[in-house]
Amino acid sequence: MSILITGVAGFIGCNLAKRLTNEGHIVVGVDNLSRGALQNLSVVENEANFHFIETDCADMPSFLAEMSTFHQKFPFTEVWHLAANSDIPAGVSDATVDLKDTFMTTFNVLEVMKTLGIKVLAFASSSAVYGDHGDQSISEVSGPLLPLSNYGAMKLASEAAISAAAESFLTKTFIYRFPNVIGVPATHGVLLDFVNKLKANPNLLNVLGNGTQQKAYLHVDDLIEGMLQIQRHATEKVAVYNLGAEDEGISVRSIAEAVVARVSPRANIVYGVENRGWVGDVPKFQYCLDKLRKLGWTPELDSTAAIKRAIADIVEQEITKK
Amino acid sequence: MSILITGVAGFIGCNLAKRLTNEGHIVVGVDNLSRGALQNLSVVENEANFHFIETDCADMPSFLAEMSTFHQKFPFTEVWHLAANSDIPAGVSDATVDLKDTFMTTFNVLEVMKTLGIKVLAFASSSAVYGDHGDQSISEVSGPLLPLSNYGAMKLASEAAISAAAESFLTKTFIYRFPNVIGVPATHGVLLDFVNKLKANPNLLNVLGNGTQQKAYLHVDDLIEGMLQIQRHATEKVAVYNLGAEDEGISVRSIAEAVVARVSPRANIVYGVENRGWVGDVPKFQYCLDKLRKLGWTPELDSTAAIKRAIADIVEQEITKK
Repeated sequence: MSILITGVAGFIGCNLAKRLTNEGHIVVGVDNLSRGALQNLSVVENEANFHFIETDCADMPSFLAEMSTFHQKFPFTEVWHLAANSDIPAGVSDATVDLKDTFMTTFNVLEVMKTLGIKVLAFASSSAVYGDHGDQSISEVSGPLLPLSNYGAMKLASEAAISAAAESFLTKTFIYRFPNVIGVPATHGVLLDFVNKLKANPNLLNVLGNGTQQKAYLHVDDLIEGMLQIQRHATEKVAVYNLGAEDEGISVRSIAEAVVARVSPRANIVYGVENRGWVGDVPKFQYCLDKLRKLGWTPELDSTAAIKRAIADIVEQEITKK
Repeated sequence: MSILITGVAGFIGCNLAKRLTNEGHIVVGVDNLSRGALQNLSVVENEANFHFIETDCADMPSFLAEMSTFHQKFPFTEVWHLAANSDIPAGVSDATVDLKDTFMTTFNVLEVMKTLGIKVLAFASSSAVYGDHGDQSISEVSGPLLPLSNYGAMKLASEAAISAAAESFLTKTFIYRFPNVIGVPATHGVLLDFVNKLKANPNLLNVLGNGTQQKAYLHVDDLIEGMLQIQRHATEKVAVYNLGAEDEGISVRSIAEAVVARVSPRANIVYGVENRGWVGDVPKFQYCLDKLRKLGWTPELDSTAAIKRAIADIVEQEITKK
């Protein structure tokens, strides 16, 4: 197999590249290195079957030219489209950020696939497409889909464009609605934020929001295993799957306490007053994972175990190694 | 009230402009006249409170400049965003058509509203956001949303962007999921297509698809009355409503027979073999309208009555007048 991964230098992209090269596939990774980093690719850079191309999927002419050249040598059999904005508040203040990095990347990936005749697409969507459903457990058929952030909006826009492309020229499509995913290399997110705040000031951890926001977390190793299981077993032409842990999640307060206990036990934790951290943040969120379970797979780690392992990973990355 | 209507020179836009000017509002209509036509505005062109500006919502700098100028004189209180591609097959063969005309128009309308501080938006969405749900009756909470055409995809993308904007800077938003809407001035659609085919050849009506596709139709007068009723009574911040007739719809075969009976009774009707007319066409579609009914309003005409009145309207437009 010859596989294209977009956003390969990001947190999930580099873990996926490692897994797919280990399985023996030819893997071509592209990234514009705006949020991803070359150092994340150290895990695959010495693999003979891994190739990195620096290009911006949002820049259609150069993206298409680069892909056409490679496609002539090793015709791509599938695409994993992970490239997207990862700074959600930045996208809320300026809608053009997610327009370009989260949506136009998808639009262009589809145009490239149509032009080159590539028929299989796996897409990193997000729980953010659902918006705020309160205490309701969210399944793949839940609606209405009213995202709160431009990030969620442009992930939903991407799903929609993929769905239309599936009707027209794709043969198989996987839409993975990611939960909060944690692990290393950590590039953003609550754990990295907390660890770095404590590095800067070991006596104080300021938390955005009142700490009651509760979400489920999935470790990146489980995420990748889950996606590959879905790809093996799902039968729909457009296979939409929630991916996540089965538990009720863990509160920001519990996460803050766990990071403080590990990094700087003497620190005071100071909370905000709102029940959300920023515009577009969903205060509580729980997935229904019946559809995933029916494929015969569940994650190895629940939210609490995933947080615990990821804190250890990130402390190693941010403190021990530096 | 000072109201902006985009796509004002289209079929629904000009009918809406007439209604809102009649109610005494200042109405500014914009259109790029690519699919709309100035002659559609004959019904409002002599109204002192109606103003037409030729501009393309997809061209941000000139659209914003025109709107800013007018906004300084008569600050807009709300926007009705109707501008979109109306040629669905064209958008299926070339995805950039709906990207520009159906999605970027919405994106830019939101940017203009944010810049000028306009807080209320009514949006013409579509039943096409749902995709194919088979025999299932479709309510506003139905999912998954897997549109089959780029038109449907970019309407869903628009809804998503509006939803995120509602969280960030809009105070009130109406998302109207239109059914098939009929009436005059007819610019596209099955009735106009059939009437014009029979004008060209009174002996033969070629029908795309096998004629079993069955859909509900709403007359444009009912559509506009329904939207205004929702605007008066809906309480949600983001009010998503299916708009349509309550019946099971009418088959393409019945429509073909009705048009033939009215226009050229001697014509033979020849059907295709597929159960859909084109890629992106949904063979069968039925709305659940419980949410609309709870507001205390139902359309005056069912699908059959709406088709009958619209055929008479279109024959008048295409044959009697010419």
